[in-house]
Amino acid sequence: MYKVREFETKQLLHGGDYNPEQWLSMPEILDKDIELLTGAGINVVSLGIFAWAELEPEEGVFNLDWMEKIINRLWKNGIRTILATPSGARPKWLADKYPEVLRVSPDRRRMLFGARHNHCLTSPVYREKVARIDRELAKRFGSHPGVILWHISNEFSGECHCPLCQDAFRSWLKDRYTTIDNLNAAWYTKFWSHSYQSFEQVESPSPLGEIALHGLNLDWKRFVSEQTASFIAAEREVVREYSDLPVTVNLMYYFTQLNYARLAREIDIVSWDTYPAWNKWPLVETAEDNGFWHDVMRSLLKKPYIQMESCPSATNWQGVSKLKKPGLLMAQGLQAIAHGADADLYFQIRQSRGSSEKFHGAVIDHYGGADTRVLSEVSEVSEALKKLTPVVGSRTKAGAAILFDWENIWAMEDAQGPRNDDLHWKDLTLKIYHGLCRLGLNVDVIGEDADLSDYSLVAVPMAYQFREGFAEKLASFTAQGGILLTTFWSGVADGTDLCYLGPRPHGLVDVLGLRSEEIDGLYDWEENELVRAQGEDTLNIESLRGPYTCKYLCELPRLSTAKAVLSYGRDFYAGKAAVTRNTYGEGSAWYVAAHAGQEFFDDLMEYLAAEAGLQGPMGGSLPAGIQVTERTDAEHRYIFIQNFSETAWTVEMPAGEWKPLYGNPDEPLPVYGTLVLESI
Amino acid sequence: MYKVREFETKQLLHGGDYNPEQWLSMPEILDKDIELLTGAGINVVSLGIFAWAELEPEEGVFNLDWMEKIINRLWKNGIRTILATPSGARPKWLADKYPEVLRVSPDRRRMLFGARHNHCLTSPVYREKVARIDRELAKRFGSHPGVILWHISNEFSGECHCPLCQDAFRSWLKDRYTTIDNLNAAWYTKFWSHSYQSFEQVESPSPLGEIALHGLNLDWKRFVSEQTASFIAAEREVVREYSDLPVTVNLMYYFTQLNYARLAREIDIVSWDTYPAWNKWPLVETAEDNGFWHDVMRSLLKKPYIQMESCPSATNWQGVSKLKKPGLLMAQGLQAIAHGADADLYFQIRQSRGSSEKFHGAVIDHYGGADTRVLSEVSEVSEALKKLTPVVGSRTKAGAAILFDWENIWAMEDAQGPRNDDLHWKDLTLKIYHGLCRLGLNVDVIGEDADLSDYSLVAVPMAYQFREGFAEKLASFTAQGGILLTTFWSGVADGTDLCYLGPRPHGLVDVLGLRSEEIDGLYDWEENELVRAQGEDTLNIESLRGPYTCKYLCELPRLSTAKAVLSYGRDFYAGKAAVTRNTYGEGSAWYVAAHAGQEFFDDLMEYLAAEAGLQGPMGGSLPAGIQVTERTDAEHRYIFIQNFSETAWTVEMPAGEWKPLYGNPDEPLPVYGTLVLESI
Amino acid sequence: MYKVREFETKQLLHGGDYNPEQWLSMPEILDKDIELLTGAGINVVSLGIFAWAELEPEEGVFNLDWMEKIINRLWKNGIRTILATPSGARPKWLADKYPEVLRVSPDRRRMLFGARHNHCLTSPVYREKVARIDRELAKRFGSHPGVILWHISNEFSGECHCPLCQDAFRSWLKDRYTTIDNLNAAWYTKFWSHSYQSFEQVESPSPLGEIALHGLNLDWKRFVSEQTASFIAAEREVVREYSDLPVTVNLMYYFTQLNYARLAREIDIVSWDTYPAWNKWPLVETAEDNGFWHDVMRSLLKKPYIQMESCPSATNWQGVSKLKKPGLLMAQGLQAIAHGADADLYFQIRQSRGSSEKFHGAVIDHYGGADTRVLSEVSEVSEALKKLTPVVGSRTKAGAAILFDWENIWAMEDAQGPRNDDLHWKDLTLKIYHGLCRLGLNVDVIGEDADLSDYSLVAVPMAYQFREGFAEKLASFTAQGGILLTTFWSGVADGTDLCYLGPRPHGLVDVLGLRSEEIDGLYDWEENELVRAQGEDTLNIESLRGPYTCKYLCELPRLSTAKAVLSYGRDFYAGKAAVTRNTYGEGSAWYVAAHAGQEFFDDLMEYLAAEAGLQGPMGGSLPAGIQVTERTDAEHRYIFIQNFSETAWTVEMPAGEWKPLYGNPDEPLPVYGTLVLESI
Repeated sequence: MYKVREFETKQLLHGGDYNPEQWLSMPEILDKDIELLTGAGINVVSLGIFAWAELEPEEGVFNLDWMEKIINRLWKNGIRTILATPSGARPKWLADKYPEVLRVSPDRRRMLFGARHNHCLTSPVYREKVARIDRELAKRFGSHPGVILWHISNEFSGECHCPLCQDAFRSWLKDRYTTIDNLNAAWYTKFWSHSYQSFEQVESPSPLGEIALHGLNLDWKRFVSEQTASFIAAEREVVREYSDLPVTVNLMYYFTQLNYARLAREIDIVSWDTYPAWNKWPLVETAEDNGFWHDVMRSLLKKPYIQMESCPSATNWQGVSKLKKPGLLMAQGLQAIAHGADADLYFQIRQSRGSSEKFHGAVIDHYGGADTRVLSEVSEVSEALKKLTPVVGSRTKAGAAILFDWENIWAMEDAQGPRNDDLHWKDLTLKIYHGLCRLGLNVDVIGEDADLSDYSLVAVPMAYQFREGFAEKLASFTAQGGILLTTFWSGVADGTDLCYLGPRPHGLVDVLGLRSEEIDGLYDWEENELVRAQGEDTLNIESLRGPYTCKYLCELPRLSTAKAVLSYGRDFYAGKAAVTRNTYGEGSAWYVAAHAGQEFFDDLMEYLAAEAGLQGPMGGSLPAGIQVTERTDAEHRYIFIQNFSETAWTVEMPAGEWKPLYGNPDEPLPVYGTLVLESI
Repeated sequence: MYKVREFETKQLLHGGDYNPEQWLSMPEILDKDIELLTGAGINVVSLGIFAWAELEPEEGVFNLDWMEKIINRLWKNGIRTILATPSGARPKWLADKYPEVLRVSPDRRRMLFGARHNHCLTSPVYREKVARIDRELAKRFGSHPGVILWHISNEFSGECHCPLCQDAFRSWLKDRYTTIDNLNAAWYTKFWSHSYQSFEQVESPSPLGEIALHGLNLDWKRFVSEQTASFIAAEREVVREYSDLPVTVNLMYYFTQLNYARLAREIDIVSWDTYPAWNKWPLVETAEDNGFWHDVMRSLLKKPYIQMESCPSATNWQGVSKLKKPGLLMAQGLQAIAHGADADLYFQIRQSRGSSEKFHGAVIDHYGGADTRVLSEVSEVSEALKKLTPVVGSRTKAGAAILFDWENIWAMEDAQGPRNDDLHWKDLTLKIYHGLCRLGLNVDVIGEDADLSDYSLVAVPMAYQFREGFAEKLASFTAQGGILLTTFWSGVADGTDLCYLGPRPHGLVDVLGLRSEEIDGLYDWEENELVRAQGEDTLNIESLRGPYTCKYLCELPRLSTAKAVLSYGRDFYAGKAAVTRNTYGEGSAWYVAAHAGQEFFDDLMEYLAAEAGLQGPMGGSLPAGIQVTERTDAEHRYIFIQNFSETAWTVEMPAGEWKPLYGNPDEPLPVYGTLVLESI
Repeated sequence: MYKVREFETKQLLHGGDYNPEQWLSMPEILDKDIELLTGAGINVVSLGIFAWAELEPEEGVFNLDWMEKIINRLWKNGIRTILATPSGARPKWLADKYPEVLRVSPDRRRMLFGARHNHCLTSPVYREKVARIDRELAKRFGSHPGVILWHISNEFSGECHCPLCQDAFRSWLKDRYTTIDNLNAAWYTKFWSHSYQSFEQVESPSPLGEIALHGLNLDWKRFVSEQTASFIAAEREVVREYSDLPVTVNLMYYFTQLNYARLAREIDIVSWDTYPAWNKWPLVETAEDNGFWHDVMRSLLKKPYIQMESCPSATNWQGVSKLKKPGLLMAQGLQAIAHGADADLYFQIRQSRGSSEKFHGAVIDHYGGADTRVLSEVSEVSEALKKLTPVVGSRTKAGAAILFDWENIWAMEDAQGPRNDDLHWKDLTLKIYHGLCRLGLNVDVIGEDADLSDYSLVAVPMAYQFREGFAEKLASFTAQGGILLTTFWSGVADGTDLCYLGPRPHGLVDVLGLRSEEIDGLYDWEENELVRAQGEDTLNIESLRGPYTCKYLCELPRLSTAKAVLSYGRDFYAGKAAVTRNTYGEGSAWYVAAHAGQEFFDDLMEYLAAEAGLQGPMGGSLPAGIQVTERTDAEHRYIFIQNFSETAWTVEMPAGEWKPLYGNPDEPLPVYGTLVLESI
């Protein structure tokens, strides 16, 4: 188990990715950069992410002087450096000399050199060459006072199916299953006569061969995450030879290829890159979606993290790239701090002149003058972050948690089941999340392996995969007084995607007081409704009286001890229970059989929060678009209030005594406005 | 020519695919299966379809004892076995040791092991290994009293482009054309300078090379069907060495890759797998579409057949999988019997725990208890089938036939012509079919090679390809008093897709009394109309007065002896004839120039049926959704009345004396309800 | 620099592609062809385009006698021959013996033989074999009195990535950049560490490797055009050894793979193939779009050209193929003449019996009789063309020009920028074109390399790429009194797709009196509006008062000396300038910041034409669908008036004295009607 080295900062960080290697032949540009950055209050940059070809122009020939000059100069001007290892994009000479570093695609074709992230993470040659350049960097800069953090590689993604990876996969499977019979049983290979006689016969999934052996697919995804984690650990250990600085990797929005919960175990601090499509959908949705993913990231290590990339104006890779409206840059930056980040960084500092990202927004654009809207708004953010210095290091405490488990998503999406067109797990999860946010509650987003002892309310929507011990953990949580919320399509399969036999949700039949019998798929144009349950063994709750709509999937439970709260209103299962509550030990276990609408989840979460004794700092429920979060340190509470609605909002001050750290509580909070209060 | 061995059964079969090899390590499951199946009245299962890896775990090492135990035990419990040859999915050791058994895709890449149906049917090694396991099975079980039928392989599909197949294709072409000049002429290779100098130069169609040489494409499809037929024959002959039992292969819904008319010549009884998307579209459409395909299957050998697979609840591979509403399982099962089947079987008996079909509906689900809706409905079906025992072996006699010819569809869809977006041949065919069903008439669905002597009314919609002798057969049929219905886009090309020169429809110009001059494509958003023809040489029919809409394709005929019944209402061809009738010999030949709407075909088929002297058992036309079919044996007529409408229907009894075999004629027939009457 | 040999004709040409090699075994067909063609007034055919296999059935064995017979016979019957070199489709023996002639796709797979245009244009073997057959043809027919023009190959397209092409590409790059450092700088390879150490490392773009190195992509496209031009030149020089006849290549509609401006430098006369989807969209749009592309083609060499292919009835490759309505064949043919063509040719003379184009419309169809609508309309066109003989050789003089530059389109579409979903450059260009056509003005369509001295009004919409000297040329044009129209997204990048630093549009900041600061992408469902500018430094023009809608992209300029005419009406940039005018030297420079609607461009172009002193022959603006163009020779002016509206139009005669060459000016001009006037 890796022992974490804490990242410490005295100020909120503000800066971004910087690529001076592109401008070495234009020193006047580098001069201008220092002038513009210091003028705008930037205090940190990330260096060297794609600089390998400049740092090692030929194999074994290192050229680090230019970087030292840059780091020194930045440091002298009050700008610190997050130093990247350059393994996210390798030089052409490396690919040409050692073709094994090039990935092989699922259809078994060796890629050519190009783009980035196109290297085999298994390749011993690649690991050796990466270690060599990393060692040079660590030796030279690992103790530099201006360098504060290692940024390992960049946005890990993808997979390789080369012979080296096939061998590594087989070894990994041997470690996991010991015998081929165990593997055959776990993957259920008797289906379609696919039994293996030896580990050597296993091939990674391929459109040319196996794509629907779910156990294989699931283990392959696990292996890819393990291989990536091992690559991160290897880079980390190399820089550790010469440097005590903490390390991070930058993660990405809704990225489900890699198990971030696994990767997070190899690093000291989480960082991530966020590019919401602001003003494409209703503002409140985009803001809440972004907030959710901030919570995912913070919950990975349950401590402050870094917003490593965000766009200072318009991206260049979306179908339509919109300018950020005035004030949105500030709102986006402070949303990160509100959710527990200690850093607000951009991609990128200076716009490149050529290649694929030349039109991606930047703090300094092609025009290059100081009189731009972006530079002016960046300066304002710098001012705001200075005012918020007291929150540095403070934590986010949550009494409620929602499940978001990478392995569960892998298994659920891969299985061919009642709704292949779209399971809608994402919007179901966000509906529950919204129901909690609207109460001003902090929310953690957790995996099945999480410790539940901090929470009084836990929601596990569409927990299709129940890994070993999970049902027991939920039962124990409930028995000890917790409020548990489950839904349809839960407890279906084990950790190898083998369906549980007997009643389901597996292991929760007593806790929930029911078993699910059938599940019905609804076309996009169909819906059913949830109405107040009638008859005996029902529980009528005034604030949950419906009717509510429901869509997509409708499960049909048979109740034992559970009480029906709502039942279906239509189709042949009209009158059957659809929402139930069961008392279990000291707690209660709820079950929602169908994908209900937002109104239902608003009402339900309000009821459950009350049942769990949770209350947000603002008391009752908030208008749509008003986001409230809280950070806490040994002495103070900090409340962040942001307006992502379409109109200004007159803030009602929370109970207690507060002083404003940022913003004016006496004025209506404008759209994109933020108010930060500190407890007195 | 293969001599058929008749399949005989004393009872209607009820059962499905069963995979006990998945449960050998859990004997309690196998015990439970017997208990549940006998309790539900199941009387047959299909065994061994995907069991090769269990039957021959290593090359030449056979393990058939477990299967013998299962067959014996089933037999003792009154359940008979349809025994599969396991060639539908081969073991991994076979693919690893003999890579030639793996298919090569059209883009010339050798597949990896995976999925199923991924074997080269040409490979001598594959044929030899299949023969060996088939022989073992036939020796051991070919005379077992509990085994009643051979199920050869499974759902044949796909094609292979390996060097062995290329050679076999070239040999097949040499047999067909004798000289390369003949092939060049047939394929019209002078176009774009594609002439071959020798058969050795021919390559199968490929996205890397030729894809638009229609003669090549057509012959390749024929070759693939021939190769599949030859593979079936080879398996059949092997089991014949030790077994007198009849053989079947299970065919699929709207499957046009393989010419089923060709495959049917190698088997004793047809069986097929049907998975309608019930409750996705209007019920009446789905039921009629399924009924059409039942008629296609029955017409292949013109005798009772087997519904080999259907889903007992929801599938797992559709975009959205809906539960079967109560009563639908019965309706679907009895629809098969109504159209001439003697068996109603399911996929699958017990749901697998893992891999790609683990959520496909099954008679016994993961829960595994007896108290499920599916088991209860399956039991009801068993009861109904017992009551219908008298219909076993009875035949379906039809006086009307519709063309559905695989080669015609291949040629028509491959040719680039007036409407590449969609020719809409399928809905045109179903409109004519509906026009006949609504009169309660039995309908055969036939190919160009069929004998027409049983019919007084024959419809040949969009018969683009006129193979040798077809025009003459239609002419002779008409001359002898038949009523012939033809449409636009007919008689265009010969059997090698070479366009006929001179007037068309080729060979029918005198029969129809016209030639077609031009054909106009209409966009999806365009339509024209058919109105009563004006002027001389017209024939006004009171029940065909229009106006009717028409879409997609409008052909412009020039009449000689034909009389115009309807003409176009719009566009530059307003006033030109669109529907015509010509007296020819003792019969009459109709021509419909455009893709008219359902109302037109309802009126037309009613008129033509009367002209042909055809009348259904219920007299006039039926309400939408009411399906009536008839079976007959030496002594009795059996009328099946099914309600696939949205409301109950009060049955009006047919003329004559009848007793109910199933259902109560005194009560309204509910939705999904069936009434079966036996003549007294 | 290639020296042009002028093509001369005394009559307007009327004919098409003819493939008698398909009918050599049916001499009665060849007889019938002569009868039907002479009867219909056809005076020219294109021969031999796909005849290689017939001309050289085995390597080195030539068979040209049949062609000589055909040419002689045509000549005797008054039909001249455009003789093709057969390199557009090679024989199978050539591909089999020399696999290097087969293309390699971007994913590095060697194609199989098939289709056409599947040959490597770099291959020395292919060039040698082509030269050999070309030489035979030139020797035999190069001085034949019936042969009037060489048709080099056919519809060039596509690219090859084989090793020979890779080498040629590297050599071409070495010539262009001299040093690898120059290439690295031009392609900005420091981005993502992609620096090359040598030219040998460069690989063409591939989905397996680099796809987003825009400098590479752009140079690859240039190389492909150069390689095609060099192939054309090589064929031309071979036929020149024995023949003094001019050469052409047939180009295609909206074809942007190859730089036609580059190809045109190798030929004597332009020809092109046009297949508008008549009656799919509103008639006026289709006609204007086709007219635009006629102008593109004429402007390539600024002299009469050939409509080499068009469809005499319905195509067979569109999604839906519609018949040509009566009169449309005439309208389409005369539109070519109206825009400056001296020839109206069809694909094809006789419909093939087989293969992929067997249902493409033809002058003689499968039926083969004389009594068809097509033959009758073709005869009418012959009559009309005879009446128009005086216009042969006359020129089209235009005072206005619009930019359509292949390299600009390549660069702009490849760059990932503010709107990847669709930049809408095509409809923007057509809006400006429409604004000019509606005034009855002739319009040239030019590239950045064009000489501007003929024009008083030049529009350069979305000129993203400013190659060296272009900004200076525009500045000089304006300074000398020209009216310049520019738009958003202009002057962004240089000729290697490297963004200009500093203010933009690069080099035009003073000319336009502004710099653009930001650009906003709008989703398809969004729009803004343009309203009259308010306040100081504005210029209010009565005929440009708006409001107008605008969509897709909105640029935000900061004005220096420019006057705002219109400003944005909505969003955070409401009130900012959107349409500006700046006086520069003797001229004026206009800038349109957003993709405005047609109404705006109608009003603007009317204003600008007046400012530029341009007036059409009909005086004011024309109703939608009425197209007016003018040709001129030493003695006469010829005005063509065509009606592509939905109703007849009463022609108002232009000022001056005119006599009708075709059509009757005293009758209303019907839909599809044409009136041609000659000055007296």
